[in-house]
Amino acid sequence: MKTSLGARPLLYPTPVLIVATYDAQHKPNAMAVAWGGICCSKPPCVAISVREATYTYGNLVERQAFTVNIPSVDQLKEADYFGIASGRDTDKFAVTGLTAVASDLVEAPYIGEFPLALECRVVHVAELGLHTLFVGEILDVKIDETCLDAAGRPSTDLIKPFSWTPGDNQYYGMGEKLGKGFSVGKVLKGSDE
Amino acid sequence: MKTSLGARPLLYPTPVLIVATYDAQHKPNAMAVAWGGICCSKPPCVAISVREATYTYGNLVERQAFTVNIPSVDQLKEADYFGIASGRDTDKFAVTGLTAVASDLVEAPYIGEFPLALECRVVHVAELGLHTLFVGEILDVKIDETCLDAAGRPSTDLIKPFSWTPGDNQYYGMGEKLGKGFSVGKVLKGSDE
Repeated sequence: MKTSLGARPLLYPTPVLIVATYDAQHKPNAMAVAWGGICCSKPPCVAISVREATYTYGNLVERQAFTVNIPSVDQLKEADYFGIASGRDTDKFAVTGLTAVASDLVEAPYIGEFPLALECRVVHVAELGLHTLFVGEILDVKIDETCLDAAGRPSTDLIKPFSWTPGDNQYYGMGEKLGKGFSVGKVLKGSDE
Repeated sequence: MKTSLGARPLLYPTPVLIVATYDAQHKPNAMAVAWGGICCSKPPCVAISVREATYTYGNLVERQAFTVNIPSVDQLKEADYFGIASGRDTDKFAVTGLTAVASDLVEAPYIGEFPLALECRVVHVAELGLHTLFVGEILDVKIDETCLDAAGRPSTDLIKPFSWTPGDNQYYGMGEKLGKGFSVGKVLKGSDE
C-alpha cells in the first residue's frame, strides 16, 4: 500500500559528481553535484544541474566547459567539502591541497588525484527553476592508471566510487555485486518465448 | 598518472530507474533507464534519457507523462528484464506479474510492488543524439508504507535500492554508510576559517 510524500526531489541513489571549472581570472573551482548523470551515449554526454547562485554557474556560462570528477571513498572528506564551501570566497583547491590540472581539450581543470575525469564542453542549457541543467559533451575520459585492471579496463573495485541518498543525506560505499546487467532478467524473457 | 579512455559515457554509479508509460491503446509499458536522475529541486524534476528506437519514446511523446519507479534488490530480475525486452512485442507487466497502477495525477502507470514511484509530466525535451533527454516535473512521490521508518521518513535500509556501473555492466547493492552529506567535509572548512 502506497502513501504520498508530496512533490519532492527523491531518488535512490545519486552519484557524487565533482564539477570543476575556471573563473574569469583562471582560478580553478570545484563543487559537488548530486543532480546529474550520463544523458546520451552517442555523442557521449553528461548532465549536471547547478543553482544560479553558485560560483560554478557563472564559470559555466563564461567558459562553456567543465570537467566531472569521480572521487574515491578515500576522498570523501574533500568531495563533501566541495559541496559546503563556495569558490566565491575560497580557493577550494588550496584548502584541500588537491591539484587542478589544466585540460588540454576544454577550458576547465580536472582534479589530478581523483580516479576519473570527464572533460566536457557545454552543448545544451535548460533553465528549469532553482536549478539550471547543463549538458556537456564528453570529449575524453581520463582515468588514473592504477584504476585499470590487468586487461586495461576501468575497475570499479579500484576506482572505489560512492553514492549519495537525498532521502537521508547519507554517503554509501558500493555494496555487494548483485549480478550482470542485461543478464539476470533473461530468466523472465525465457518464460515469454 | 592519468591515461585517456577516449570519449565514452562512463560514470560511477548510476541509479536504476524503471520508467513506466502508457501506449496509445493504454497498454502499460516499463523500461530500465540508467541515464537519468534528479535535475531540479524546485520545482522537483527528474531527467531520463531514452533512445528514439524504444517503445517508451513514442509513449512519452504521445502522453507527455511517465513515472520513475525505484526497484528494491528483491526486484532485480524484473528490473533487468525491463531493460532487455521491448514493449513493442511484449506485455512486460504480464510477463513479470507486476501491477500497473493508474496514476491519479498523470497519464502513466506506476509499479504497485516497487517501493518508490515518482509521477511526472514532461516539461522539457532535448534531442542530444542517440538519446533524447526528457525532463519530468515530479508532481508526487508515492512510497510503500513498509519503507517508512518509525518517524515516517523514507528509509534507504527498507527501500533497499541498488545501482549500476556502466564500466563493467554490474549491479551493486548499497554498501557501507560512509558519513553524512554537508558534514564529513566540515573538518576542511574549519581549516579555512
